[in-house]
Parts: sequence; C-alpha cells; structure tokens
Amino acid sequence: MRIYIMRCLVTIGLTIVGLGLHDSVVAQPNTPMVIKEMGSFHVGGRVAVISGQPVKEVVFSKGGVPAKVDPNGEYQVEQMYVQYYIPQDSKSKYPLLMWHGGGLSGKSYETTPDGREGWLNYFLRKGYTTYLSDAVERGRSGWPSYPDIWESPPMFLTKADPWTRFRIGPPNSYSPDPAKRKTYEGQQFPIQAYDEFCKQFIPRWVTSDDAIIKAYIEYLDRVGPAILLTHSQSGIFGFKVAAARPNLVKAIVAVEPAVTPPTGPDLAKLKDIPIVLIYGDYIDKDSRWPKMYETMQNAMKWLNEQGGRVETVRLPEKGINGNGHMIMMDKNSDEVALLIHRWLASKGMVKE
Amino acid sequence: MRIYIMRCLVTIGLTIVGLGLHDSVVAQPNTPMVIKEMGSFHVGGRVAVISGQPVKEVVFSKGGVPAKVDPNGEYQVEQMYVQYYIPQDSKSKYPLLMWHGGGLSGKSYETTPDGREGWLNYFLRKGYTTYLSDAVERGRSGWPSYPDIWESPPMFLTKADPWTRFRIGPPNSYSPDPAKRKTYEGQQFPIQAYDEFCKQFIPRWVTSDDAIIKAYIEYLDRVGPAILLTHSQSGIFGFKVAAARPNLVKAIVAVEPAVTPPTGPDLAKLKDIPIVLIYGDYIDKDSRWPKMYETMQNAMKWLNEQGGRVETVRLPEKGINGNGHMIMMDKNSDEVALLIHRWLASKGMVKE
Repeated sequence: MRIYIMRCLVTIGLTIVGLGLHDSVVAQPNTPMVIKEMGSFHVGGRVAVISGQPVKEVVFSKGGVPAKVDPNGEYQVEQMYVQYYIPQDSKSKYPLLMWHGGGLSGKSYETTPDGREGWLNYFLRKGYTTYLSDAVERGRSGWPSYPDIWESPPMFLTKADPWTRFRIGPPNSYSPDPAKRKTYEGQQFPIQAYDEFCKQFIPRWVTSDDAIIKAYIEYLDRVGPAILLTHSQSGIFGFKVAAARPNLVKAIVAVEPAVTPPTGPDLAKLKDIPIVLIYGDYIDKDSRWPKMYETMQNAMKWLNEQGGRVETVRLPEKGINGNGHMIMMDKNSDEVALLIHRWLASKGMVKE
Repeated sequence: MRIYIMRCLVTIGLTIVGLGLHDSVVAQPNTPMVIKEMGSFHVGGRVAVISGQPVKEVVFSKGGVPAKVDPNGEYQVEQMYVQYYIPQDSKSKYPLLMWHGGGLSGKSYETTPDGREGWLNYFLRKGYTTYLSDAVERGRSGWPSYPDIWESPPMFLTKADPWTRFRIGPPNSYSPDPAKRKTYEGQQFPIQAYDEFCKQFIPRWVTSDDAIIKAYIEYLDRVGPAILLTHSQSGIFGFKVAAARPNLVKAIVAVEPAVTPPTGPDLAKLKDIPIVLIYGDYIDKDSRWPKMYETMQNAMKWLNEQGGRVETVRLPEKGINGNGHMIMMDKNSDEVALLIHRWLASKGMVKE
C-alpha cells in the first residue's frame, strides 16, 4: 500500500512536471496543429513599363547562339508574398505577423537549420493566428530586372559574412572547414547546421526600403490590427509602418532591430504601443552592436519620455545566455519564444 | 402532412446531393486541416568560390557615393527549398510532391489568384502528405550572382506574355486595360484576378535545368518513394528524375508537360511507373501546343510500346471544358484535382 501511494505520488509529481513543461518550454510538440484556414496572397506592388529599348542579343549558354530578347513591356514589380495559418481555436487577440531580416526570407521562422520546429510552429501550436511573409524582392515576392527597372544591383552574402556579423563567432573565426570554425563560448546557434543555414540566404537590394515599407503598409491595411514580430533589418520597417498606422499595430516585438528610427513626431506616434526589444548575448564583444544598441536605447528612452511603453530585454540578464543574432534558430529558441509569448500575454494580446 | 413529407424528401435529397459534392468536387472546406507535422528544409546545392576578382565600386543609389564591394569569397548556390505538410492520418501511400512550372514558385499550388483554396489544400484535406518546393534559383531557394557565378542573365516575364502562352486568350488579345482583354470562349481562368496572378511571376534562368534536376534528385533521395505532380517546365524534370530514380517514383501526374523527353534507354526506365498526362482546352487554337502535344504523344506511345503505363487525359474529352495552361488556378481546379485523386486511387496510391 505504501509502495502504491509512493507510485501515485511519483505519477502525480511527473504529471506536474509534465504540465509545467507543457506550459513552458515545450510547445505541445506531440499534439497536431488544427488549422481552420491556411493560404497565401500577394500585396502591393506596381506595374513598371519598359519602352523604347532596343531588342537585346543575349547569350544564355557559353558558346551558344545569341537569342533576341525584347525587354519592352509591362512588368509587375515590388509586390510582397504573404502566408497565413489560422488555428481552429485562435487564442491570439490579433494575428502575429513575422517579418524576417536582411538577406533572408520568411523561411527564417520555419524549421530551424538543425531541423527543430521554428517560431512559426511554436506560435501556431500556442494558438496564435500567424502570418509569414517574404520582403519585396526576396523569396516568393519575386524581384525586378536591374538595371532596366531598378538601377542598382543586389548584394550577395558570402558564407563567411554572417558568422561574425550575426555574432556566432569572433572576427576572422570562420573557416571553409567546419572543424576549424571558432564560436563564442556557450554559443546557442546550432553550429553543426551552419552550412544548412547558408542555404537560406537570398540576394537583397540595399535600395529597396521604400518599396518594402509601402508593401508592409498595404499588408497591414489588409490584415490588421496586428502584432508585429520583427527581426534585424525589419525592425526599422516595424517602427515606420507603426508610425504610418499606429491604430493597426497593437504590439511590437523587435528582435535585435538593426537600424534606429529618428526621434521626432513620427516616432512619438508609437507611444501607446507596447514594444519590447530583445537582444542576445556577446553584444559587448562585437564591433558594431554596442553602438547600435546604444543608439536604439537613446531613441527608445526618448519615446518613453513622450509617454512610450518600450521595454528592453537583454536575454543574459534573464539568465538566458549564448544567443547570437539569429535567436529564432538558436538551440534555446523555444525558451525565447516562451518569453515573447508571456510578454504578449501580459500586454493583453492573448485571449483569457 | 404531405407538405411535411415533401420537405423531408427535399432535405434528404439535398443531403444526398451535399454528400455527393462533399465526396466529389468539394474537398471538405469546412473541416479543419489536422496537421501532425509541417516544416521546411533545403536540399542540394554546392559552394561556389569567387577569388582573385578586384573590389568593385558599386553605386547603389542614383547620385550616391560608390561603395566598395568585394565579390570574393564562398557562396552557397543551387540549393532547393522544400516545404512539407503531414496530416495526422495520412491517407496517401506516398507523399505527393508538387513541382511548379517556369517563371513561378511553389506558390502556384497555394491559394488561387482569386482567393480560393489551391491544390495544396485540396490534397491535404483529402489526407495526402504533401510537399511543395521552389525550383533552384526561384523563390525561397535563392539565386546565384551573375555573371560572377552563373554566366547567363535571367529572364523576366512581361504581364502580356502568359496571357497567350498560357492559352488564356488568343494572340494579341492582352491589353494593359483589364476591360479590353479578350479570352477564349468559356475560359476557366479567373480572369478578374489576372493582375494578381502576375504578382506570382519570379525571374528564371533558361540555363539552370541541370542544377534543378540535380536538386530534385537529392530531394527525392531524401523523401522518397513519392508521387510526382509536375506542371509545364517541371514535366521534363519529372521524367528525368524518374529515369534517375525509377524505384523512388511511384506515379507521375504530368499536367501540361512542356518539353518531351527523348526516346531511348532512359525513358524506357519509366515503363513500370503509372503516368497520366493531363491537358486543358484550346490546344488546337494555339500556335505551339499542337506540336508540343503531338511530340509528347509520340514519345509516350513509344514508352507504352516498351511496356509503359502512360495514359493521356484531354479534359474536354471528359466534358471538362475551358482550361488553359494554369489548371491548378482555374475556377474548376477542384474538379480536376478530384480527377487526379481518383486516378491516383485507381493506381493504388491511396490507402484503402
């Protein structure tokens, strides 16, 4: 009988631990996602017309016969691709729009490079209505001809570049040989999958901000009011779009925003929006991030002086260590997602 | 009482009609999709190295100061992006791999341009494990620098081009003014959403076949055995990949394949694979399709003479009229999806 009671207590204890995990780090990985609606669409864009240009002679294959290509005509450009997943019983008061960073696509929030579920699935399993998009000129949004329609060329990321810039390892610690790559101590990025991560790189323009912001505004007009989850390059897009549509943005989670918005009347329009900035580790070890962090803090301090509601979370100060710039892919990505979920819940973004 | 009985009979009648529809044209639109797993990954690709090139001076904005860009380094290129959706109770014996056509991405099979559910959702609701991908150099697969890595430039689709080439309207019937566009009589393409469809266009190379086929083979090696659903440009990829991995391809549904595989030992390897070619309407009215159809029929006749299992469905001969080239987007897309589902079931591809 005593053994039986002990067994019961152990069972109850395990159940409590299980429930604790269930509600905390682990996001119901074994229960199916029950989706009422899923689909995709494009927003925004414009028609560009090329006219009066000569027919070009283009050699497509080395040694091949030149083909005549007439570039003249109407082209659809600058649209943005958006996907949505609506759970059967949506628990988010507003849809959660996930905006990716530079040189990447909406893929950032899907399966992590090492094959774990990403933040899309995390928030979907938590009951959020979630949207994913590819910025203008990236991924399924397509891209315009240059220099015929856009004058400037795109940028291409080398495999080496993000290793340091995304604070995975210190300067000059990348090597083509995976065995020779050095990381910051305690690094949470799934290092063994870095080469997989490089397959996510998408060429980008550095001159497309206006077109991207215009499309994000049209996107918000179509699906808002909404919660914005931004990362890196899209941080500034979140702030600018919120300034253009302050009533349609109900909260902003800015994960390592890269560019600081200027203080002034536009930024002041964000004063009623709960905002949280989330930063990873190793900032003090980096050549660029200390200044980027400080500039952003100054702007957000100014916003708070105007009555703003900005909070900053430096993950190491919460005991969450080892995150570089790609937090949604890090080995502890679920732990940070939970922190975001709890913050959103505390701001009334989740149904009771 | 008589009226009551009449009402009952009408109700029963409607219910029967409703059930008939439920099991036939309409794919359970009101029941949620219960998804056990969903996610994405990249397959294939290689590392390209640029070395010994001078640092370039690039002007990104008109009148701007030239920026120095060092093109040298390692680049990840030629990978392919793949998404998957696994229903809780998968009813397909093998996963259904949906491969898109030229100048497009996996988006082709998602929501139609006029906002209806596409074939991805249709087959998912029917219980198929479904995969969607973006061909190498398109969408979320990214694309390599040209001419630094690939020598040739990409091709851009004008808005006018597919109007005729995809058999929506006769030659010279496209107009920038939607009100002036002319279509073939009885056209099933959602004409009012043609401008939306143009937002799906993705620049493409005409020199990337080998890289695409290589990545598709790696994709099949990873997820096969599988059923291939190809369209247009990807038709030839389906035949070539099946020749490379005949044991991993269990059936091929080739919707309007554009390029005919050569007869010979490679094609003969497909003799045990059930294959159906599906064609829409207006072929005889087009300048290119009669020849493309005839060439393909000759090759498939040859394959059948080697013991092959190829069937051809010309939709008008089944009383399904008005389809152009983008059948998965047409207003009767569910009707054609049902035909495909029934054909797959008849070949033992669906669990009893």
